[in-house]
Amino acid sequence: MAVKISDRMRNVQTPVIPVVQDLIKDNPGTISLGQGVVNYPPPKQVLQAVNYFKRSSELHKYQYVEGVANLRDKIATKLECENAANLTGRSIVVTAGSNMGFLNAVLAIADPGDEFILVKPYFFNHQMAITMFGCNTVTVDANANNQPVIGDIAQAISHKTRAVVTVSPNNPSGAVYSEALLRGVSRLCCENGLYHISDEAYEYFVYDDCVHYSPCAFDDAKENTIGLFSFSKSYGFASWRIGYMVIPQALSESIRKIQDTNLICPPVVSQLAAVKALDIGREYCKSHIFKLEEVRAGIDDQLLQLGDQIRVPKTEGAFYFLINVDTSMTSMQLVTRLIQEFGVAVIPGSTFGLNNEICTVRIAYAALNKDSVMEAISRLVRGIRCIT
Amino acid sequence: MAVKISDRMRNVQTPVIPVVQDLIKDNPGTISLGQGVVNYPPPKQVLQAVNYFKRSSELHKYQYVEGVANLRDKIATKLECENAANLTGRSIVVTAGSNMGFLNAVLAIADPGDEFILVKPYFFNHQMAITMFGCNTVTVDANANNQPVIGDIAQAISHKTRAVVTVSPNNPSGAVYSEALLRGVSRLCCENGLYHISDEAYEYFVYDDCVHYSPCAFDDAKENTIGLFSFSKSYGFASWRIGYMVIPQALSESIRKIQDTNLICPPVVSQLAAVKALDIGREYCKSHIFKLEEVRAGIDDQLLQLGDQIRVPKTEGAFYFLINVDTSMTSMQLVTRLIQEFGVAVIPGSTFGLNNEICTVRIAYAALNKDSVMEAISRLVRGIRCIT
Repeated sequence: MAVKISDRMRNVQTPVIPVVQDLIKDNPGTISLGQGVVNYPPPKQVLQAVNYFKRSSELHKYQYVEGVANLRDKIATKLECENAANLTGRSIVVTAGSNMGFLNAVLAIADPGDEFILVKPYFFNHQMAITMFGCNTVTVDANANNQPVIGDIAQAISHKTRAVVTVSPNNPSGAVYSEALLRGVSRLCCENGLYHISDEAYEYFVYDDCVHYSPCAFDDAKENTIGLFSFSKSYGFASWRIGYMVIPQALSESIRKIQDTNLICPPVVSQLAAVKALDIGREYCKSHIFKLEEVRAGIDDQLLQLGDQIRVPKTEGAFYFLINVDTSMTSMQLVTRLIQEFGVAVIPGSTFGLNNEICTVRIAYAALNKDSVMEAISRLVRGIRCIT
Repeated sequence: MAVKISDRMRNVQTPVIPVVQDLIKDNPGTISLGQGVVNYPPPKQVLQAVNYFKRSSELHKYQYVEGVANLRDKIATKLECENAANLTGRSIVVTAGSNMGFLNAVLAIADPGDEFILVKPYFFNHQMAITMFGCNTVTVDANANNQPVIGDIAQAISHKTRAVVTVSPNNPSGAVYSEALLRGVSRLCCENGLYHISDEAYEYFVYDDCVHYSPCAFDDAKENTIGLFSFSKSYGFASWRIGYMVIPQALSESIRKIQDTNLICPPVVSQLAAVKALDIGREYCKSHIFKLEEVRAGIDDQLLQLGDQIRVPKTEGAFYFLINVDTSMTSMQLVTRLIQEFGVAVIPGSTFGLNNEICTVRIAYAALNKDSVMEAISRLVRGIRCIT
């Protein structure tokens, strides 16, 4: 008798990055502006922590489900000093990356049939987690500069809504939300008994005079705010799998159950490395982000050559441009041709929930050195000019 | 307005190990026979892999969602040689521990309302995952020696059943299932269009002349078999979070989606360490398991002193005894008194789905050296004698 595959997974979109990676593999020489990673390694001192780990026999056993005490203490200090977060009545949970933090949040706050409000363009893994657990995504469009509109979010709230999700600095758009806007979202959540899930994986990646503001600072919204953070981008930690979440204490028991069933505890070698990273602090990231600022300016210059063929919404953060291309092709069609004919890979906007009436692609510019990025962008410019 | 906590998490049992750990903390000097970990570290050579990882900048970026190729290749060789598994039509997925493998399996094969058959005593994290994702656990009792009875499993199958779960060598009972029994379960699954989820985390931990048999060897059941494996016990890898699953290829796409949303990729530093562990192979474990065999015999001897006050079902594997104590107390009441009055911690049978009419506790004997275990068992013997 034939075995079944679950319906719930059939409803979840296929992640696009592996699809693009396969296209790249089939077209050797392609330069990828696809994946959202940084080109710099973790601080060298981090690796000393690994030596310490190696010598301890006790640390090879399971540790506490929410993370080792030393790391949680240092995260607490960081949240208080850098994010102006008052931690009374809150818990910190170390996760194996901030995707896992989002997964924890969905399971802890929502039942099947409940709704989450995402702003388009959304981060695809958020939408996937919501679908996977039987909840529904309600999307609201952002404005032309990828800023959410409070009135639109308010209109999208129903009795089934459990949370509004914001990602600032934004993946995939690079937009950074102002304190006023985030306060507006937060107030809306408090008034309607919703959670505000704030994904801040890119908090250090802001440019020019832009400042990142954390909703974890809103003291009167502590019971409503779930903050998600990551070491992956800031400290070049992608493959180590360490992130953390700040949650209202009321969610602690649920999230302990979830993480015990999923992971038992975050990888301890990575947690010790993360302790060292926090000792060094964001100064480490600053020098790298300064270099990214140059790359970013270079891209801006080159994209100007395309004139009216593209529209480049304002970006102030993360390491993405999300450009609208004037063509009747779908974003996936454009991406495929750019790889096959011009040797440059970007990510189609369709994966971020953007419809195909406007062709949109995401450029990620942190994974390579400046020269490679510039070469890739010149291929992109040539490609768009020829294809569209 | 007040925020909601999900109903689904309310229905999930609170993991008992942290509760017992809190009791231990409140009663200093307690020796713990609680947690299922080994007392030996990973092989030293494993740590060289970490040095290699440290030098590579590329390896700090995300790697393939199902695990790095080198590790998957070595796992394939291991499965073919040691478990007689034919891998045609199957995939290997590296996970952050085998709990995550079980979670992947539940989401990939079952929708809310579907049923899983677990044999009592069951592994609590299995039951938690099933509940968390809106599915139902149907339990069948094992016999007096903790062996499942095929006829009882057959009777428990309904049109909603999606899988039968076996854990051999068993946590918490230490029972090892024969090839004939596992073939019976497998045949039942094939006839009824069910998956057979075979958790083999303790595959190397068998004693006397007992042999572990893997259902992954049943060639005609390849489409129905999901095998779960772990480095945590065999290689002293608990805190590194590395396990793997063998799945029918038909589940690959779903499981890639799940793991991408949850973890992106297993921690790469741990994957490189796992490659080295497989190079060294099970010989490393054998010497440690030989020592465990001595500890095990010592416990058996001491428990004899309790005569009719306890019943000790036959165990041939893992590193557990699950003993029935002749008392009217609940298992949690007995555990609490043993910690508070006699300084020894064990795990209550209630967490493994055993009802409270028979008082049952699990003794885990691999986490400590022989002397500590013997001291703990003598406290346990004294405690049971005095209390019951």
